[in-house]
Amino acid sequence: MIKESIKPRFCETDGLGHINNTVVAQWFEGARDPVFKWFTPDLNLSNWKLILAKTTVEFHAELQYGAEVELKTYISRIGNSSFDVYQEAWQDDKKCASGTAVMVHFDHKNKKSQKISAATIDTMKANFIEL
Amino acid sequence: MIKESIKPRFCETDGLGHINNTVVAQWFEGARDPVFKWFTPDLNLSNWKLILAKTTVEFHAELQYGAEVELKTYISRIGNSSFDVYQEAWQDDKKCASGTAVMVHFDHKNKKSQKISAATIDTMKANFIEL
Amino acid sequence: MIKESIKPRFCETDGLGHINNTVVAQWFEGARDPVFKWFTPDLNLSNWKLILAKTTVEFHAELQYGAEVELKTYISRIGNSSFDVYQEAWQDDKKCASGTAVMVHFDHKNKKSQKISAATIDTMKANFIEL
Amino acid sequence: MIKESIKPRFCETDGLGHINNTVVAQWFEGARDPVFKWFTPDLNLSNWKLILAKTTVEFHAELQYGAEVELKTYISRIGNSSFDVYQEAWQDDKKCASGTAVMVHFDHKNKKSQKISAATIDTMKANFIEL
Repeated sequence: MIKESIKPRFCETDGLGHINNTVVAQWFEGARDPVFKWFTPDLNLSNWKLILAKTTVEFHAELQYGAEVELKTYISRIGNSSFDVYQEAWQDDKKCASGTAVMVHFDHKNKKSQKISAATIDTMKANFIEL
Repeated sequence: MIKESIKPRFCETDGLGHINNTVVAQWFEGARDPVFKWFTPDLNLSNWKLILAKTTVEFHAELQYGAEVELKTYISRIGNSSFDVYQEAWQDDKKCASGTAVMVHFDHKNKKSQKISAATIDTMKANFIEL
Repeated sequence: MIKESIKPRFCETDGLGHINNTVVAQWFEGARDPVFKWFTPDLNLSNWKLILAKTTVEFHAELQYGAEVELKTYISRIGNSSFDVYQEAWQDDKKCASGTAVMVHFDHKNKKSQKISAATIDTMKANFIEL
Repeated sequence: MIKESIKPRFCETDGLGHINNTVVAQWFEGARDPVFKWFTPDLNLSNWKLILAKTTVEFHAELQYGAEVELKTYISRIGNSSFDVYQEAWQDDKKCASGTAVMVHFDHKNKKSQKISAATIDTMKANFIEL
C-alpha cells in the first residue's frame, strides 16, 4: 500500500461547504505518481507509458477543508497489459471516498497496449488488495 | 436529452497534450445544471436537495483543445429517491467520454434521502435513455 | 473588443458560496483563445508562440453560480514583442472582476522573444482599450 | 516566513508540458492557510473574516511536474484593515513564480472592513518582508 497525506485547499471546497467531488479524482491522480513511476521512473511526460480507460469514485462521507486527508493506493487487478488502481481518501479516521482507475500500459507511438513486465507485476503484487 | 456545447480551455489540457481526464467530471457536473434545477429551480446553494453517491467516467478517445465539445445528458435510472445521470462528451462527431453520476434526492437538514416527486419523475422520463 | 459568454460551473464555487477567485484566472485564460489564434491560428499546442509573464486579477464584486458571465477581452498595451491583455467579467450588468495578462511573443525553440508582426499589431489596435 | 512543500499533480500540467499558470494561484491560496488561521483559527468557513481584493502572479521560470515545490509566504504590507501577502514558489533552488494577494479583514454580515487586531499585527510583523 502507498500512503500520501495532503492538505485540502480552500479553492477545493464548493458552495455546499465541503470538498467538491471532482477534486477527489485530482487527489487520486496525484497519489498515483508512485504507480506512474513504475512505468516512467523520471515522470518525463514525453516518455509516458500509460493511458486511463475508466475512473470510478464513490462518496461515503463529506470531506472537509481544515483537516489532513490520507490517500491510500493499492493495485486491485493485474491483467496482461491493463490493471486497476484502487484508492481511498481518509479524514479523521473515516473513509470518505474510494475509487478505481483502470489503466493500460500503452505504447503512445504505435498506439497499442503493451504487456506489463514481470518486474512491475511483482511490484504490483506487493501493493495488491483483494476487494 | 439535454445538450450543452462548451469550449475546452487551455488550462484544461495536460502534459500529454489533450484534455485531462479529471476535467471531464467537471464538464459533466456543469452540464447537470438542468437536472439540479428540477430540484432547486433557482440553483440557490443554501437550498440544495441533492447529494452525489458515485461517479464513473469512461474514456473512449482523446479530447482536444481547440474544438467545441457537445455534452449530452440523460437519465438512465429512476429509483424512489435516487437516480442515475448518464452523460456523453462528443467532439468532431466522436463519442470521446461517457459517464454516470448516481445522485440522491436528499434532505440536508435531516440528513436523509427523500422521495422524488411524481412531476420530477415525469421530467426524468422525458429525458430517459435505456443503456 | 472580444466577447464570450460562459456559465459558471457548480465546482467553481467555494465554501463562501460564490465563485472562487482562482477560477476567474481560468475563465480569463479561456477567453484569450482569440488572442492565441492571432499567433497560432489552429491552436496547435506544439506550435505555441506565447509565454505568460504576469497576471493580475482585481475582484470588485462576488461572482455567483446560476447566472451567465460575460467576458470582455481587450488589448491594453502593445510593445515590440510583449503586450497586455485586459479582461473583465460581468454578471447581471455588474463588472465583478477585471485583470491583465502580460504576454510575450516567444520562440520556444530558441528561447527568445520575437517581434510582433505588423498585421497582428493592426488586429491588436482594433481591439485596443485605453486604461 | 511560512514554508510549505507541495508535490505538483499530473493534472496541474498543461499542453505546453509544464505547470499551468492558473495552478500557481491555487497553490498560493492553499499556502495562505496559516494566514487564514490568524483570523479564523479553526478554518470554519461559516465564520470567515477575510476577502480577497486583488492577486498578482509573476512567472519567472517554468514549474515542472515531478519535483517538489517549496512555497514561501510573507506579509509585505500591513494596513489598518487590509494587508498584502507576498508568496514565492521555488523548485530546484530556483524562484519560478512570485505573487501578492491583497486581503481585507472583513465583517461578512455587516459587509464592511474591520481593523486588524494588535495581536495579529504582531504576528504579521514576525512574518514581514520588505519588498
